[in-house]
Amino acid sequence: MSRRTARDLRSESRMAVLRAFFTLRTATRQELSQHTGLSVATVSTLVKEFLSAGVVQIEAMVSTGVGRPLELLRLDPGRGYLVGVDVAETYVETTVFDLSLEPLGTVSVPLDEHLNSPQYVVDGIRLAVHGVLALASIEASSVVGVGVSLPGQVQPDLGVSVFAPNWDWHDVRIKDLLTDDLGMHVHVDNPLKAITVAELWFGAGREHRDLAIVNLGTGVGSGFALNGELVRGVSNNAGEWGHTLLVFEGRLCRCGRRGCVEAYVGVGGLMATLAEIQPAHPALRITQQKPFVDAVQSGLVSGDGAMVELVDRTARYLAASLGDLVNMINPEHVVLTGWTVARLGDWLIPLVREKIQPAALASSLAVLTISASALSSSTVALGMSTLTLEHFLAAVGLPSSAGTTGSGTVAG
Amino acid sequence: MSRRTARDLRSESRMAVLRAFFTLRTATRQELSQHTGLSVATVSTLVKEFLSAGVVQIEAMVSTGVGRPLELLRLDPGRGYLVGVDVAETYVETTVFDLSLEPLGTVSVPLDEHLNSPQYVVDGIRLAVHGVLALASIEASSVVGVGVSLPGQVQPDLGVSVFAPNWDWHDVRIKDLLTDDLGMHVHVDNPLKAITVAELWFGAGREHRDLAIVNLGTGVGSGFALNGELVRGVSNNAGEWGHTLLVFEGRLCRCGRRGCVEAYVGVGGLMATLAEIQPAHPALRITQQKPFVDAVQSGLVSGDGAMVELVDRTARYLAASLGDLVNMINPEHVVLTGWTVARLGDWLIPLVREKIQPAALASSLAVLTISASALSSSTVALGMSTLTLEHFLAAVGLPSSAGTTGSGTVAG
Ligand SMILES: [Zn+2]
Ligand SMILES: [Zn+2]
Repeated sequence: MSRRTARDLRSESRMAVLRAFFTLRTATRQELSQHTGLSVATVSTLVKEFLSAGVVQIEAMVSTGVGRPLELLRLDPGRGYLVGVDVAETYVETTVFDLSLEPLGTVSVPLDEHLNSPQYVVDGIRLAVHGVLALASIEASSVVGVGVSLPGQVQPDLGVSVFAPNWDWHDVRIKDLLTDDLGMHVHVDNPLKAITVAELWFGAGREHRDLAIVNLGTGVGSGFALNGELVRGVSNNAGEWGHTLLVFEGRLCRCGRRGCVEAYVGVGGLMATLAEIQPAHPALRITQQKPFVDAVQSGLVSGDGAMVELVDRTARYLAASLGDLVNMINPEHVVLTGWTVARLGDWLIPLVREKIQPAALASSLAVLTISASALSSSTVALGMSTLTLEHFLAAVGLPSSAGTTGSGTVAG
Repeated sequence: MSRRTARDLRSESRMAVLRAFFTLRTATRQELSQHTGLSVATVSTLVKEFLSAGVVQIEAMVSTGVGRPLELLRLDPGRGYLVGVDVAETYVETTVFDLSLEPLGTVSVPLDEHLNSPQYVVDGIRLAVHGVLALASIEASSVVGVGVSLPGQVQPDLGVSVFAPNWDWHDVRIKDLLTDDLGMHVHVDNPLKAITVAELWFGAGREHRDLAIVNLGTGVGSGFALNGELVRGVSNNAGEWGHTLLVFEGRLCRCGRRGCVEAYVGVGGLMATLAEIQPAHPALRITQQKPFVDAVQSGLVSGDGAMVELVDRTARYLAASLGDLVNMINPEHVVLTGWTVARLGDWLIPLVREKIQPAALASSLAVLTISASALSSSTVALGMSTLTLEHFLAAVGLPSSAGTTGSGTVAG
């Protein structure tokens, strides 16, 4: 237990330097020190590791007028590539990034939601990974790692999909299956963790260290970062806000519990609410979820009273549930994301900002802002690539040069 | 924003060494290094600061058989004293501790709950602080700091009671008032933060790094620690689980919202539930809260059917609300504490362990344990003294010797 401390501190320092590169693009050791708050000595030790691993390169020498010129450093985009993979029930979407996490291309492969064997999903992932590499003319041998987001509960350390309800997967050793199949380094995690990391490094996290992500789609979930660090909980399940109570003994949820937030603000919940408002509404004949939400959006544009009422009730449910999240976590900022938000956010977000007022402590609301995500698509792939790069860099550190923050061994 | 990093890392290292002293009592630098995972060099730098501040002393020299003898170090109990103050609506309880946080005496002073001016409360605190110092024969001049827990929402950095609902306090600059009145260094915080810190350092936190505290009494609240660190949120309000939803649009809560957990499992909630079960039950004629809970306990001992039903319903409410906490935070351990738990825990906890099963994710429950607190009384005072000692030690560090984890300036 206590041995984790030094490794944590060391890893935090390394990630702080990496994050500084993402923000600054190019920087001297002195600028990295200023940006991270780490000493120049600590920064120099970490940069030395990054240089010897080929992750960082010297872009130029800069003269400051006094003293000798300083080395201007950057992440080496040619060092290798990362592939981020977003696996959902109906598709696999892959995006390839260079080492500075610039996207180079995206490919999407449909999955039949009625087929659920691990091998079927692995086949889909292989097709999508090789497809995106071909698109961007990248050799498989130059891929540093593949980060795969899987629905449900995932244990990244063990590489296991603990439970994927819609596929009925239990304890599938998906990382081993993918590593064997792809012949590449694979890292797995849950999409909410990936989205939170993407927001943390490239989105709202640049402004806010205490951050909650709320994702609305078929499923509903959250992720949060405290003090700039992703919160995982003890078994990577923190943030399952979608399965907290909204209505005691209310609607049956997909998770088996009654009254969960997801059963009201997930797309299935929206359908159930509309059926309560106007059981014969034509939109209820649409069985697919995205076309249904499109119909809600059209109804709002055309002023359909039932749809206006649906958004009003949904905003009431969402505000109450966000009130719980705010009271529990006391974040500085809530980012709403997901495809329901993309379609209905313009109506939903102003209502939620208003209706959350009685639902959370005044002194927590006083410091809170709420907005839609400003990140473009492929957020899951971006987050998974970031996590995979972190994992790669954690292995780069040389335990023998650990003098700056401790001598703990580095996780491999 | 980014400047916080080095300070955080440095502060974490210092607190890790302090915590090691609490656990080990006496230790060599090598043992401190082993226990914390920090390098011997880092430990030596921090110990040097502690020695020059007089916080640590050399207890003895120990020979290891090889090499020169090593210095056996300990916190210097004679360096000064800490007073922990638990202010509630009806009493002020103070405990004085030496610097190794051994309790030396406790004094309690009643408060009239109908009097609520800041000066009345300050008078009560002064009486209790001077009372406990007289009891333990300690001079006011040797008090390092006084840690005062106040009900409601508190901002420790500003020293302000943001909102204390039962006193109708808004933005009371209580730290300044107390500092002027006592002539001592004062640190203020919220009782849940104090209890969480006490559990973290002296209770369940010795075994569990991801920990939630759930306190049941008149009010209901939680605190949590992730990765061994107290979670505060952006305005020190994280953990307001007592004011998350149990029943959408349910019972009116003291906070003004409808359906909060507190309105069901706080003592007022227990009274309301009993009134639903048996409106004419004699225990409902008891208007004071502790005697009411004593009556519930007696009823359980004697097999009163209404009280058995009351505990069963309360366990159902509590299990559902704890399910939400578990799904959000994914802790390794939940500690139940507070005076309702002291009286009813033997009945409540086994029922909660059973009823939580459908209320939270199986893979989060698989790693979860739930128990009553093993700490004896004065937990709030112990936690406040610990926070005050941390605050004192944060000011001890010398920025110029900051080479080990960074060169950030140290918070005063
Ligand atoms: Zn659910
Ligand atoms: Zn409330």
